[in-house]
Amino acid sequence: MVDAETAVDGENTDDPEVADDPEVAADLGTEPAGAVGTSTDDPLKAEIMRATYGALVKRGYSDLTIQSIADEFPKSKSLLYYHYDGKDDLLASFLGFATERFRREIDVETDDPEAQLRSLVDRLVPESLDDDEYRLQVALLELRSETPHNERFREQYAVVDESLKSAIADVLSRGVESGAFAADADPDTEAEALVSLLTGARTRRLSTHERFPIGGTRTALDAHLDRLLADPEPER
Amino acid sequence: MVDAETAVDGENTDDPEVADDPEVAADLGTEPAGAVGTSTDDPLKAEIMRATYGALVKRGYSDLTIQSIADEFPKSKSLLYYHYDGKDDLLASFLGFATERFRREIDVETDDPEAQLRSLVDRLVPESLDDDEYRLQVALLELRSETPHNERFREQYAVVDESLKSAIADVLSRGVESGAFAADADPDTEAEALVSLLTGARTRRLSTHERFPIGGTRTALDAHLDRLLADPEPER
Repeated sequence: MVDAETAVDGENTDDPEVADDPEVAADLGTEPAGAVGTSTDDPLKAEIMRATYGALVKRGYSDLTIQSIADEFPKSKSLLYYHYDGKDDLLASFLGFATERFRREIDVETDDPEAQLRSLVDRLVPESLDDDEYRLQVALLELRSETPHNERFREQYAVVDESLKSAIADVLSRGVESGAFAADADPDTEAEALVSLLTGARTRRLSTHERFPIGGTRTALDAHLDRLLADPEPER
Repeated sequence: MVDAETAVDGENTDDPEVADDPEVAADLGTEPAGAVGTSTDDPLKAEIMRATYGALVKRGYSDLTIQSIADEFPKSKSLLYYHYDGKDDLLASFLGFATERFRREIDVETDDPEAQLRSLVDRLVPESLDDDEYRLQVALLELRSETPHNERFREQYAVVDESLKSAIADVLSRGVESGAFAADADPDTEAEALVSLLTGARTRRLSTHERFPIGGTRTALDAHLDRLLADPEPER
């Protein structure tokens, strides 16, 4: 996982670092290219997103201010105001940005559908969380709990949710076609279940923290994926 | 669902109204009898919990004050202070209380394991939410997003989570024994997955609200339950 400092210092403008971290993409899901007119290939945008990420990890959602993002941003604060309508706009953009990066990464790392699906699950619900990962997930949960009061966040979460679902459905479709997954697995239905399963595991983990049964959860996730296989392995 | 007025006016002290509402038990899960020394049979406690429920639905979590709970409580405000160490204590108790009621209701309405499981799913992720149900779920999501900063809530959510899981595992065990569920379904693993699935579906629903694909989610939940059956129905 990229820490805030590395992210801020990074000069590589098309740097995949921000979402090298599966957690950045975390609650997120994914954004269809251009959905909010925000390409991850824009170098300035990448820098702003790194600053947003750094501030989120350091401050959490409730204490986040434009100034705390500016503090992580190596260029002029006025650029933030020029490109974004305030904190909420920056955060909504961040969700979309991280989501798009996450989706891209999943796409490129392998073209084996089963491996892609296991990697996606592993990134969203890893065995352990370091401090930064934990703090980011907490900030994202806070952001999520704002959605009922914030139309902009709600809209963005709908995009993120749909996007993660369609990414999973794509992997499943290819897997059914290739014979890796059971022929009777309906990609849309299974993707819908998997998004809930992953979102729920992440939410429960944060709500109970040290007490969260990560071992049992990962066993359950593995068993769930095993069931989707054409020739299921015995349940673990 | 009980609305705040009915709950406040209710005189029946062992009134199941508060958790007549599946949503009250909502994010919750269940509390093992006596876990936090809070019996649902205590009439004064039931009255206080109804007041807490009423205030939560009206005000949400962020705007909740002891005074707003007192406004819903027909007796002296001093009783609230006498029995509870402030707002957080009241809310943690409310979680436990609603959870215990929810668990009791699931237990008594039928002894058919499949019907119990479907009813539990149906209560936690109903086809539609009325305004009060929606507002309560939103308040509970806010409360959940406080858990990382609040040890008392985190402890209570661990109890709630474990309790919902054990309730589901119990139903599954009985179903495997009776032959309703597949003999190779591991109750603990399946319960773990189901708790995440339900928690995730509820969280996603609130994050996207009008855009939430409730039809698809319920189809996915049904398909998931169908798979647990000894003689699976065709996937819907």
